[in-house]
Amino acid sequence: MKKVAVIMGSDSDFPVVKNALTELRSFGVPFEAHVMSAHRSPALAADFAEHAAENGFGVIICAAGMAAHLAGVIAGHTTLPVIGIPCRGAALEGMDALLATVMMPPGIPVATVAVDGAKNAAILAVQMLALSDEGLAAQLRERKAEMLAGVEKKDAALQEKIGEL
Amino acid sequence: MKKVAVIMGSDSDFPVVKNALTELRSFGVPFEAHVMSAHRSPALAADFAEHAAENGFGVIICAAGMAAHLAGVIAGHTTLPVIGIPCRGAALEGMDALLATVMMPPGIPVATVAVDGAKNAAILAVQMLALSDEGLAAQLRERKAEMLAGVEKKDAALQEKIGEL
Amino acid sequence: MKKVAVIMGSDSDFPVVKNALTELRSFGVPFEAHVMSAHRSPALAADFAEHAAENGFGVIICAAGMAAHLAGVIAGHTTLPVIGIPCRGAALEGMDALLATVMMPPGIPVATVAVDGAKNAAILAVQMLALSDEGLAAQLRERKAEMLAGVEKKDAALQEKIGEL
Amino acid sequence: MKKVAVIMGSDSDFPVVKNALTELRSFGVPFEAHVMSAHRSPALAADFAEHAAENGFGVIICAAGMAAHLAGVIAGHTTLPVIGIPCRGAALEGMDALLATVMMPPGIPVATVAVDGAKNAAILAVQMLALSDEGLAAQLRERKAEMLAGVEKKDAALQEKIGEL
Amino acid sequence: MKKVAVIMGSDSDFPVVKNALTELRSFGVPFEAHVMSAHRSPALAADFAEHAAENGFGVIICAAGMAAHLAGVIAGHTTLPVIGIPCRGAALEGMDALLATVMMPPGIPVATVAVDGAKNAAILAVQMLALSDEGLAAQLRERKAEMLAGVEKKDAALQEKIGEL
Amino acid sequence: MKKVAVIMGSDSDFPVVKNALTELRSFGVPFEAHVMSAHRSPALAADFAEHAAENGFGVIICAAGMAAHLAGVIAGHTTLPVIGIPCRGAALEGMDALLATVMMPPGIPVATVAVDGAKNAAILAVQMLALSDEGLAAQLRERKAEMLAGVEKKDAALQEKIGEL
Amino acid sequence: MKKVAVIMGSDSDFPVVKNALTELRSFGVPFEAHVMSAHRSPALAADFAEHAAENGFGVIICAAGMAAHLAGVIAGHTTLPVIGIPCRGAALEGMDALLATVMMPPGIPVATVAVDGAKNAAILAVQMLALSDEGLAAQLRERKAEMLAGVEKKDAALQEKIGEL
Amino acid sequence: MKKVAVIMGSDSDFPVVKNALTELRSFGVPFEAHVMSAHRSPALAADFAEHAAENGFGVIICAAGMAAHLAGVIAGHTTLPVIGIPCRGAALEGMDALLATVMMPPGIPVATVAVDGAKNAAILAVQMLALSDEGLAAQLRERKAEMLAGVEKKDAALQEKIGEL
Repeated sequence: MKKVAVIMGSDSDFPVVKNALTELRSFGVPFEAHVMSAHRSPALAADFAEHAAENGFGVIICAAGMAAHLAGVIAGHTTLPVIGIPCRGAALEGMDALLATVMMPPGIPVATVAVDGAKNAAILAVQMLALSDEGLAAQLRERKAEMLAGVEKKDAALQEKIGEL
Repeated sequence: MKKVAVIMGSDSDFPVVKNALTELRSFGVPFEAHVMSAHRSPALAADFAEHAAENGFGVIICAAGMAAHLAGVIAGHTTLPVIGIPCRGAALEGMDALLATVMMPPGIPVATVAVDGAKNAAILAVQMLALSDEGLAAQLRERKAEMLAGVEKKDAALQEKIGEL
Repeated sequence: MKKVAVIMGSDSDFPVVKNALTELRSFGVPFEAHVMSAHRSPALAADFAEHAAENGFGVIICAAGMAAHLAGVIAGHTTLPVIGIPCRGAALEGMDALLATVMMPPGIPVATVAVDGAKNAAILAVQMLALSDEGLAAQLRERKAEMLAGVEKKDAALQEKIGEL
Repeated sequence: MKKVAVIMGSDSDFPVVKNALTELRSFGVPFEAHVMSAHRSPALAADFAEHAAENGFGVIICAAGMAAHLAGVIAGHTTLPVIGIPCRGAALEGMDALLATVMMPPGIPVATVAVDGAKNAAILAVQMLALSDEGLAAQLRERKAEMLAGVEKKDAALQEKIGEL
Repeated sequence: MKKVAVIMGSDSDFPVVKNALTELRSFGVPFEAHVMSAHRSPALAADFAEHAAENGFGVIICAAGMAAHLAGVIAGHTTLPVIGIPCRGAALEGMDALLATVMMPPGIPVATVAVDGAKNAAILAVQMLALSDEGLAAQLRERKAEMLAGVEKKDAALQEKIGEL
Repeated sequence: MKKVAVIMGSDSDFPVVKNALTELRSFGVPFEAHVMSAHRSPALAADFAEHAAENGFGVIICAAGMAAHLAGVIAGHTTLPVIGIPCRGAALEGMDALLATVMMPPGIPVATVAVDGAKNAAILAVQMLALSDEGLAAQLRERKAEMLAGVEKKDAALQEKIGEL
Repeated sequence: MKKVAVIMGSDSDFPVVKNALTELRSFGVPFEAHVMSAHRSPALAADFAEHAAENGFGVIICAAGMAAHLAGVIAGHTTLPVIGIPCRGAALEGMDALLATVMMPPGIPVATVAVDGAKNAAILAVQMLALSDEGLAAQLRERKAEMLAGVEKKDAALQEKIGEL
Repeated sequence: MKKVAVIMGSDSDFPVVKNALTELRSFGVPFEAHVMSAHRSPALAADFAEHAAENGFGVIICAAGMAAHLAGVIAGHTTLPVIGIPCRGAALEGMDALLATVMMPPGIPVATVAVDGAKNAAILAVQMLALSDEGLAAQLRERKAEMLAGVEKKDAALQEKIGEL
C-alpha cells in the first residue's frame, strides 16, 4: 500500500497533527511524519516532495499555521495529491492559515480541510487510497456505519440529560 | 477508468464549473455533470451519492455558493473523496461559501479548493485517480513541465514589455 | 399544541442548546430534543424532517457549529419553519457557523438567530406557535413586560453601584 | 388570514424588497408594505409594531442596510415574529447589515435570512402562517415539488450544454 | 454645566462603562447613568432621549454589545450628539457591535469610539462640552500635557528594563 | 460661531467629502476645507491642529482612506473634538480605513462615522456646535421633522409602486 | 549600485507591478523584472533567490495574489530583504494575499506593503539601498519635499472647487 | 554601524517588543528603544523621526496596537526605512493593528511584519543593514543554516514522539 506523508511546518503543530497520525494508524495505513518548513528548510521540503512518489508515498498531508505556505510549496514539487491543514496560530483565529492554504492559484491544487482539521485530513487521505484498495474502502464504509451508531447512542444519552433538566 | 461526477447546486454556477469540465476532458477523464441541490433536491443528491461508487464514480466534485452545503451533504452519503468548490455569490465575496464548504466537522472531510477554483478541483480529482493510473500520472507530470515552460515564456514576453515602459 | 423539535448536530452543543429547552419548558411548550447530524446521520435527519409535520411538530430548531449544514439540510426536507442556531466552535469565532446557517439560497429559508442564541431560538419558535395560540401570545406579552421590569430593576441597582464608585 | 407587514428602512431597498412582495402575492397572502425608519421615523415604527397584532398582522418582515436596526427595533415593540433582511449597502459587502440584524441579545429574536434574501423572507413568513392554515401548507409542499422539478429540468438542460463544450 | 447621560444596554456592560463614569467624574462633569435597552425597554429609551435636552443633558453616551442598536435608537429620538461604545460580547470579537454602532445611515450620526472604548467616550463628551466651557477646555489641555509627561516617564522606565535584558 | 475644519487626506476623497461641505453650508455653519496628509504633509497637519482652536475652529472633520491615520494624528495635536470619516479605497471594502480610524487607544478619541459617511460627519459637527447655539439646535430639530416627513412621503410613493407590481 | 529584482507570480500582476518598475526607474535604480511562480516554477524561483546576492541584487520585490506564497518562498532562499506586494484577486478583496504575505513565521520576514502597493514597494526598496547610498537618500528627501509641495498644490486647487460648490 | 531604533506606542507592548531587542542584541546590532506615541507624544515622535538619520539610526522599528498609527506617522517624518509591528490588542484579534499598519497610501511605505512579529522585525532590520555590512550578511547566512539544523533536530525528535503514539 502507498504510504501517507504527514509534514508539519513546526513541531508546535504536533498536538493538532497527531490526530491525523492516530487516525491513519487506526486504518492500518502506513505513514511517515516529518517536521519540514517551507521557509526554514525549503530545499529539504522540495527534495522530499520531488521524490515522494518514487519513495512510495501516495498522498502528502501538510499542516502549517500563519502564512501557511507548506502545502502549496510541497504541491509545487509533486503531482501527488496534497492535503492542507490550516493550523490556528496566536492571532486572527486561523483565518490567515486558512486563506494561505486554500486560495491556491490555477494549476496547483491543495485539498484543504478545516482549521485544525487533522482527523479529516487523514480520512481524506484514506479515501484517496481507497480508490484502488477495496479493503480500505470497506473500512471507510464501516466507519460511516459506526458514526451513525455513535449519533444514535448520543441521542439516547441526550434523552436522559433532558429528563434531568 | 473511474468517472468523475461534477455536481453544481445551481445552473448559475455553470460558468465557473465548466472550467472543471474542460480540464477533465483535456485529461481524457470520463465525467458526468449534474445540477443537484442539497436543499431543493436533497433526495436526488443523497441517492446519487449513495450509489456513486457502484455506478463507477471515483471522485465527486461539488460546486455551490452562499451557504454551500452541497459538498458536505454529498460527503455525508458516500465514502468517495468529495472535492468542494466554493462559488462566489452576490455578497460577502465568497467568504460564506468558503467557510460553509471547508469547515467540515470531524469524520466527514471535504477537499476544498479556492473560491471559484474549478480548474484546480479537476486537477485534484485527476491526481486522486492517478494514484492507480500511471497514464494519468504521466499526464500530470507533463502538465507540470508545461506550466514551467509557460512561466518561462511569459517571463520572456515580460522582458519586451519592460523595454517598452 | 404543536411540538417544537430541537436538533443538535453534536452532543457537544448541548451546553448552548439547553437554554432553548429550558426556555421552551418555561412557556409550557412541548418539545423533543435529538442529536442528529447532517453529515454523520443524514438519512435519520432527512427522515425526521420529512415526517416532522405529521408527527405533530410545528417548528424545528437546529443547532450546529463549524460548516453548520444541519438547519439547511432539515429545511430541505420540510416546509415547516426551521430556526438555525449557529454555534461557536474552536476557531473563527462562530463566523463559519453563522454564514453557513444564514446565507441560504432562494427557496429554502432558515430563520437564523445570533451565534449561540439558543434562548432566542426558543422564543422565536414560541412566537410562531403563538400566531394560532392566544395563550402563548399572552405569555409572550407578559414576558415582554417582565423584561421591561427587569431593566428597571437593574437600573435601580446601577444607581447604587454608581454611588459606590 | 393574518396579513404580513413588509417594512423597509429606505425606498432604496425596494429593488430587493419587491421580491418578497411578489412572492407573498404568489401565495395569495395579504400584505402591506411601508417605508419606515428606525432612525428617521422611530415613533411611526414603534407605533406600527405595537398595534400590528391588533391590526391583523401575523408576521413583520423588515429590510434594512448598513447598521440595520429596523428589525430589532420593531421586534422590541411587538411579540409577533419579526423577520430581518440584511440589505447590502455600498461598503463592507453586507456584513454590517447582517451582523446588525442577526446578533440580537437574549429576549428579542429576529429571524434573519441571507443578505438581500427577500424571497426567503417571504417564504419564511408563509411557513409561519401555514402553521395554522392548511391551504398555505399545501401550497408550500407544492412549491417544494416544483423546485425539485425545476432542478431536474435544469439538469436536463445542462446535459445539452455539456454536449456543446 | 450640561450633564452627560451614560446609557448601557445591559448591566453586564458595567465593567466597561464604569471607565467612562470615573473619567467624567475626574473632569467634574455631572452625569447620570442608566440601564436602558433599545429592545427590552424601547419606550423608556425613546422617552429618555426625547426629553434629554430639556432635562439638562448635553451629550448621551450609549454602550451596547452584539447587534448594538442602543446608540442608533437614542440618536433617532434626539438632536443631541450621541456617542456609541461598541462592547465586545462572547462571539465575533466585537465586530458585530462595532458595525452595528458605526454604520449609521445618512441623517442620524453616532459618534463611535473603539470597541470597549469607554474612557475615550467620556473624553469625547468632555471635548464637546468644552466647546462652550473654557474651564473644561483648560482641563483637556492639561490632561494632554499629563499624557505627554506619562509617555516620557514610561520611556525612562523602559530604559531600565532594557538594561536588565 | 466657531468654524468647522474639513480635512481630507487626498483630493481623491473630495467626491465623498463634498457631501459634508454642502451639509455644513445648508446649516449656515462656516467652514474651511483643506487637503492635508498625515504622511505627506505631517508638519502642516500638526500645525493646523495645534492652532485650530485659537484660529476659531470648534470641530475638525477628517476624511481618509486605507490606513487612515489623519483623524488620529490631528486628534493628537488638539483637544477639540475630531470626527473621522473612513473612506472606502480600492481594496478591503473600507474595513481598513474604518478600523484605522475608530480603534483609537485610550486618551485620544476620534468620533467615527460610517464608511464614506460624510453627511453624518457634518451633522455630528453641527450637533456639537449646537450645544451652545440654540439657533443651530432649532435647525437640527427642524431637519429631524423634515426627515420624518420625507419618510412619510416615500411611504406614500411606495404605495403607488406596489399597486403597479 | 545593487539591483532590485521585481518578481511577479503571474503576468496578470503586471498592471500593478509596473508601478514599481516606473518608480524604480525614476530613481535611477537598476532593476530586473521576472515572471516566476512559487508553485509553477519553484526550482527557478529557488535558484534565483539563492544566487540573487551574488548576482548583484540587493532587494527582491515579490508580487502575488490569492494564496500569495511567492515572497515567503523567495525569502526562504535568501538573506536579502524581501518585500511582498499582496495583489488583489477576483475574490476576498485581497485579504487572502495580504494574510498569506504578511503573516510569516519567526525567522523569515517579508516586508509587506499594502494590497496592490507596488509604488510603495519600490520606494521601500530605494530606502533600503539608500542606507549606503547618499545620492539615493538625497533623492528620497527631495521626493518627500515634492510630496509636500504636491499636497499644498492640491489644497490650493481644492479652494477653487469649494468656491464652485 | 548604523543603529536601529525600536519605538513602541505603549509600554504594554514591551512583552512583544523585547523579542526584537534580544534578536538585535544577538546580532550585535546597536539599538535604542523608546516609548513614544503617535497620539500622546506626537511632537516627540516627529522630532525623533526627523533627526533619526543624523543621529545615527539606519532603520526604525515601530510597534503599536489598535489603530496603530505609530509606524505611519514616523514614516511621514523620515526617509529611513520604517518597519511596523502590528500588536494584538484586546479585541479584533490584531486585524485592526494589521490594517492600520500595512495599508499605507502611495508615497510613504511601512515594511509590515506579522501580528506580534517582533523577532522578524529585528531580522528584517538586520537584513537592511547587512546590505552594506558583510559581517552582518555572514551572520544572517549562518542563522539560516542554524534554522535548517533546528528543523532537522526537531524532525529527529518527532520520530521519537511518533514511536510513543
